[in-house]
Amino acid sequence: MKVVRISIIGFGAVGQGVARSILAKKEFLNDQGIDLCVVGIADSGGCTVDNQGIDLNSALEKKKQTGTIAAGRESVFELISNIEHEIVVEATPTNIENGEPGLSNMLAAFKSGKHIVTSNKGPLALRFSELKEAAEDNGVLFRYEATVGGAVPIFNLIHEDLAGNTVLGIEGILNGTTNYILTRMAEERLPYELVLKEAQELGIAETDPTYDVEGIDSACKLVIIANSVFGKNATYRDVKVTGITKITPEALELASKNNYVVKLVCEAGNGNLTVAPRLVPKRHPLAVGGTLNVASIMTDLAGRITISGKGAGSVETASSILSDILYLVKNS
Amino acid sequence: MKVVRISIIGFGAVGQGVARSILAKKEFLNDQGIDLCVVGIADSGGCTVDNQGIDLNSALEKKKQTGTIAAGRESVFELISNIEHEIVVEATPTNIENGEPGLSNMLAAFKSGKHIVTSNKGPLALRFSELKEAAEDNGVLFRYEATVGGAVPIFNLIHEDLAGNTVLGIEGILNGTTNYILTRMAEERLPYELVLKEAQELGIAETDPTYDVEGIDSACKLVIIANSVFGKNATYRDVKVTGITKITPEALELASKNNYVVKLVCEAGNGNLTVAPRLVPKRHPLAVGGTLNVASIMTDLAGRITISGKGAGSVETASSILSDILYLVKNS
Repeated sequence: MKVVRISIIGFGAVGQGVARSILAKKEFLNDQGIDLCVVGIADSGGCTVDNQGIDLNSALEKKKQTGTIAAGRESVFELISNIEHEIVVEATPTNIENGEPGLSNMLAAFKSGKHIVTSNKGPLALRFSELKEAAEDNGVLFRYEATVGGAVPIFNLIHEDLAGNTVLGIEGILNGTTNYILTRMAEERLPYELVLKEAQELGIAETDPTYDVEGIDSACKLVIIANSVFGKNATYRDVKVTGITKITPEALELASKNNYVVKLVCEAGNGNLTVAPRLVPKRHPLAVGGTLNVASIMTDLAGRITISGKGAGSVETASSILSDILYLVKNS
Repeated sequence: MKVVRISIIGFGAVGQGVARSILAKKEFLNDQGIDLCVVGIADSGGCTVDNQGIDLNSALEKKKQTGTIAAGRESVFELISNIEHEIVVEATPTNIENGEPGLSNMLAAFKSGKHIVTSNKGPLALRFSELKEAAEDNGVLFRYEATVGGAVPIFNLIHEDLAGNTVLGIEGILNGTTNYILTRMAEERLPYELVLKEAQELGIAETDPTYDVEGIDSACKLVIIANSVFGKNATYRDVKVTGITKITPEALELASKNNYVVKLVCEAGNGNLTVAPRLVPKRHPLAVGGTLNVASIMTDLAGRITISGKGAGSVETASSILSDILYLVKNS
């Protein structure tokens, strides 16, 4: 049995989803000769550390009861830097102002020779090249499948499955909230404000929906793709962004009559970095509805390859994190 | 520069596509430190061998002018077994009666310690477990992305990108010819016979379309997926198959009025192996048109992940072969 020690930094929906998935998948992983041993967990209240492996059921229960897993005296940096383990799962909330605390956590992990698996967009939408170089300089790997598209494995698809291809361009719908709003507006002929309220009540949109509806979340994801695939060093501020707040039910109805849907489409390629509402033919591969995410990769050999799936959710995001962890177990 | 020596067995559309892709991708591969050196090519007329690397431009030209690349005195088995190289690309035509000559070629390659990358469905739809074991017994790898879905990387998606997931079931449209026929019948309200003739004139359907329209090609692909993903040892004869020849334009019109399309859907999971025409909601991820292929993977963590793209074509199939070769270069 290969024991792989990991820490989970950030114990909100994603971090807890990772813990639940590791519990649910214990036998599945053991069958592959892998034992994932969580030696440290951190949340905003503090840390808990156990070199022999934390009882994840107890940690989840404690978090539920008390709101924090804080138990030990270590700081997050001491946990990341001084506790022996191989992989840091960085799952703190996205902060697109300065990337913290994720940015410092990731740099500390690399510096102490640990691989990073993350779902945290902020640092990658601001300082991608710096992070990539820090990983390379320290001889460790940097995996970020969960930052874009939730459960949809966009980066692995491009870098591994289509390895023989040159990517010519990428189009995608990378924000489930706006896709839900546009789909409902078109189907029910309802105005934006009403559908937004419905989405907020269903927990699909946040109380302050600005980042989603103004296209900023999409821009962050697009820039991570562009940096990863085209070797760029862009930030989300380099993306030309138009949101969906000005779209009327009448515009959607007119589009529908002509066999189009309106989608908030992200485009990268040929120097272009754009997020904007676009007319998409109803039968086009990008025309997926509800909260789905989709990415279409245009390549020289394979042509257009399109992948879609759930773009959010704690278990769905944990799926990408778990696959990244297994990649590290296999390739390091 | 890592020199990787390969042979191409079968020099029809796929084999030539591989040669063209290696030529087109020379710089791209060199940039990654890889030099793919083709030391042998075989077609039905004979073999050509050059330990220093065959000039692929000349080989393609000779094939075009004379119909064969035959030059040396080696037999195909001597080329596979006795010439030093690492990877055999098996691209002979699919034969679903007994799998030959592909089956013997693959077994010979494994026996002499060579990895196989193949586009040839026949041997895998008949003797999957035997081939897998032969590869394992000889400590080599067996890669077959190009056997199913053309350019669409179904196996890599499941085995690598979704590695943390248990696959619950798979649905797909795995035959571009029947998808084209059903799409055109529905759109143009034309009878089966007329659209089949059109597809034959366009080169989308073969002169004898039986394997495609009776669902046998789909069954072969489905059984390869089931064997690979669920560890089964089934043959295409274990699949319950219904073809598309009895479908009328009236049935498609009725379906359309109720917002459905009719697709030749392959289903695997829970002991079920079926290929049959199914009603698919127009907005369902499987509802892709034209000659596209699509696969929907139902998983425990990621939910439903759907991937679509070109299911046939010489360059598209070469894309999957090239990605498999690069996987081998990285993982062996």
